[in-house]
Amino acid sequence: MRWIVPLLALIPLAIALEFLHASPLLILIVSAVALIPLAALLGRATEALAAHAGAWVGALLNSTLGNAAELIIAFAGIRAGLPELVKASISGSILGNLLLILGASLLVGGLRHGRQRFNPHIAGVSATMMTLAVIVLVVPGLFILGPQPIQGASVEFLSLTVSAVLIVIYGLYLLYSIRHQQEVPHAAPAEEAGVHWRPRTALAVLIGSTIGVVIMSELLVAAVEPVIAATGISEFFLGVMLIPLVGNVAEHFVAVQVAADNKMDLSLGIAYGSSLQIALLVAPLLVFGSLALGQPMTLVFNMYELIALVGAALISSLIAADGESNWLEGAQLLVVYIALGLGFFFLP
Amino acid sequence: MRWIVPLLALIPLAIALEFLHASPLLILIVSAVALIPLAALLGRATEALAAHAGAWVGALLNSTLGNAAELIIAFAGIRAGLPELVKASISGSILGNLLLILGASLLVGGLRHGRQRFNPHIAGVSATMMTLAVIVLVVPGLFILGPQPIQGASVEFLSLTVSAVLIVIYGLYLLYSIRHQQEVPHAAPAEEAGVHWRPRTALAVLIGSTIGVVIMSELLVAAVEPVIAATGISEFFLGVMLIPLVGNVAEHFVAVQVAADNKMDLSLGIAYGSSLQIALLVAPLLVFGSLALGQPMTLVFNMYELIALVGAALISSLIAADGESNWLEGAQLLVVYIALGLGFFFLP
Amino acid sequence: MRWIVPLLALIPLAIALEFLHASPLLILIVSAVALIPLAALLGRATEALAAHAGAWVGALLNSTLGNAAELIIAFAGIRAGLPELVKASISGSILGNLLLILGASLLVGGLRHGRQRFNPHIAGVSATMMTLAVIVLVVPGLFILGPQPIQGASVEFLSLTVSAVLIVIYGLYLLYSIRHQQEVPHAAPAEEAGVHWRPRTALAVLIGSTIGVVIMSELLVAAVEPVIAATGISEFFLGVMLIPLVGNVAEHFVAVQVAADNKMDLSLGIAYGSSLQIALLVAPLLVFGSLALGQPMTLVFNMYELIALVGAALISSLIAADGESNWLEGAQLLVVYIALGLGFFFLP
Repeated sequence: MRWIVPLLALIPLAIALEFLHASPLLILIVSAVALIPLAALLGRATEALAAHAGAWVGALLNSTLGNAAELIIAFAGIRAGLPELVKASISGSILGNLLLILGASLLVGGLRHGRQRFNPHIAGVSATMMTLAVIVLVVPGLFILGPQPIQGASVEFLSLTVSAVLIVIYGLYLLYSIRHQQEVPHAAPAEEAGVHWRPRTALAVLIGSTIGVVIMSELLVAAVEPVIAATGISEFFLGVMLIPLVGNVAEHFVAVQVAADNKMDLSLGIAYGSSLQIALLVAPLLVFGSLALGQPMTLVFNMYELIALVGAALISSLIAADGESNWLEGAQLLVVYIALGLGFFFLP
Repeated sequence: MRWIVPLLALIPLAIALEFLHASPLLILIVSAVALIPLAALLGRATEALAAHAGAWVGALLNSTLGNAAELIIAFAGIRAGLPELVKASISGSILGNLLLILGASLLVGGLRHGRQRFNPHIAGVSATMMTLAVIVLVVPGLFILGPQPIQGASVEFLSLTVSAVLIVIYGLYLLYSIRHQQEVPHAAPAEEAGVHWRPRTALAVLIGSTIGVVIMSELLVAAVEPVIAATGISEFFLGVMLIPLVGNVAEHFVAVQVAADNKMDLSLGIAYGSSLQIALLVAPLLVFGSLALGQPMTLVFNMYELIALVGAALISSLIAADGESNWLEGAQLLVVYIALGLGFFFLP
Repeated sequence: MRWIVPLLALIPLAIALEFLHASPLLILIVSAVALIPLAALLGRATEALAAHAGAWVGALLNSTLGNAAELIIAFAGIRAGLPELVKASISGSILGNLLLILGASLLVGGLRHGRQRFNPHIAGVSATMMTLAVIVLVVPGLFILGPQPIQGASVEFLSLTVSAVLIVIYGLYLLYSIRHQQEVPHAAPAEEAGVHWRPRTALAVLIGSTIGVVIMSELLVAAVEPVIAATGISEFFLGVMLIPLVGNVAEHFVAVQVAADNKMDLSLGIAYGSSLQIALLVAPLLVFGSLALGQPMTLVFNMYELIALVGAALISSLIAADGESNWLEGAQLLVVYIALGLGFFFLP
């Protein structure tokens, strides 16, 4: 966690740049990088609190606050009228977990330990669930891309229904996780990262980092439109590649680190757990929240996202199926991620 | 089988309503529900007869008469000029088996017995076969939806060729099933349902229920167009959701019941066996039959069906792969089915 | 290898027919069939040379010269301004390996030995890699078919980048194969085919057969356009079905033969190894080579190829997953190949 301290200096820098009317691109970059340690602190504080609570309260805390940074950034985006950015950040976050984190973990772990083994049943439950989540998630998009697109109010109703369905699945998944705790590896990066805070410290860190995340999110989101106008980079690309990176860097580090320690069940658990939370909880919460904010966002992904999501769920299922991994599989997940990133960059 | 008796009272009721020119929606519902016990009786009678015959004659009987109710309803639809309804009922029947029946079985079985085990090799053979069947089945649709659609006579020729291919696959599958009987669980719901009829009784029940199915099918099909006009529900939705339910309710009960008894191989066998029969035998028979009737129906599914079929085959393959199931997988298959149903309902 | 000798007589026949201005269809057929023994000789000579070299040089030789016949035919096609033919031959070659060769191997092997077993981990590595390769390979096509197609220079840049990515994956795969030799079955058909040439003989055969391939390719490619004009068969169909057959017949024989000897790991290794080489090495080399020739070819496959490739990768993954095969799976792969062939034939 020591790498966090110097990065925190970027928070006042981002604020200063904003007051000095610096270049939007610079503000975007600085505020984005400043979000990395804040998201990490917020995550660790949540896990430290959850560790002190019972199984149920802990699970609830983890699931509500565990993706707090992503949720705050996303709501800032919705309020700023950037639904494309927010939607892209949902699919980008899932892709990042299934391709980038999983790929880096398998690569580093495989280079160090050769062929690595993990429990195929546990990984299989997660992979099947992820495939199911992706299939539900892509339903509205499919029905709109088709030759007889559904329209207007139907789209919104379908999107809300699918969101409700996703939350129901999440509830079932939570129930299953708590009942079969030994089967579902706990994505508890706090412990792995060597963080042992008392509840009071954790609460203070939680509040402080939340405030920081809120401020940095506002700066970042305000810089998006000027940056798009100045550089020609698309809102979609920023959402699908940049935002997910910022919110998940800390998880990335921990997942790779435990893979390097040959704890593959935990490493897969972090990658799958995080992507399942995004798909089953964050996505529908954003749909309902956006409606409450009066700026409704629907769950209609574009064709590229649909294909990438289905493809990523498929590959990670294949890799999970045999209970073994090697560095080659990791390298190739990374290559797929890079190829997708290139494709997204060249979208008009 | 006791639940069947009171439902039989719906047969005279449906006929009476027709004579009284009652609301088409009422006739549709009553005749649909009346088909449930009739399809169940027809199925049980077929299996009872097959049980008394040798392996070959039994397999032939089961495969020709096992889906007699669905076939009769479908031919009534074709004669009434409702090819959309019939085509949708094919894909709906496969989806119902792979998502609704399998989902309910895994859910009920898993809630009762926790993690359930089954033979992954047997399930794998069925799942691979189902995926292959779906891929062949979607070929005509893909070639027509594409940017350079093939036309007219080519469509019909392609559809007939694919039908011939499907029947060839079915023949190979039948051959394989008979040669490797111990590997392919017998979908023999009659025995599980506690039905032990003598051949003569079975034959009488067979004839009686066939007549009943024919009459109820005619009433149901005649009510479809007025109901569409009155309620705005699409022909596609009726076909993809209502018809398959009616023809398969009895199988549903048995599959769920044996799952509750922890006989997962048999439960999966019923769900897969039924969907394979629909895909490999019923679908091509309808294509050839419709040609003979002078109202040619092609195997061109719409994009929504294509995606749903491929998705359903994929998920059930994933679930079958590890030889284990739990209630969460069941719950999620059901949720996918519900989400698809909602999407289909909102199609214009 | 005895079947090769009489077929070599077709080489002078093809040349004679060209000088006599015979029907282009006849020249196409004769030169295509003449390529079969030449490709076989070229392949055997390469393997014989590789067997005498060390692991690294051998792997390099095999990967560069192992698909020399396909590469020569493809470059003749590019020079003749037939990029559609060449592109189709890439996807056709992958489909041929995954459906036709694998199908024939499983069918013949299964009929002879009943249920056959193979190492699911080795097959799984290949199947996962193949799925990844296919996903990368289809990226440019997906981005161009979409509702907001990318254009012009972006297409070419994306295609070149993807080609570079594929070659990187191939390099990683080669590295992995050499380091884990016992895990990746060597596709060494030379040995299986009972060929034991000295380096000098092998070199002479290599040079002779290369010259033969070059001449026959020129004749074949020159006949393509007149044949299309005369028969109405599409350039796409010739590329996706005919060319891959010609280049791979020898591999087909060996793969089926070792399956008949119940060496399933080797049989799967030949089918997967060959399709991986096409996807990861031949395809990008053609893209770069076509650019050097001033007739740039992009890696943009049409929708039918995309779906067929993804479907083939998927099915072969399913079949590989459980470490067991039977004749039914083989028969069904063949049926899928035939169904695709029929579809491709009817494309306008």
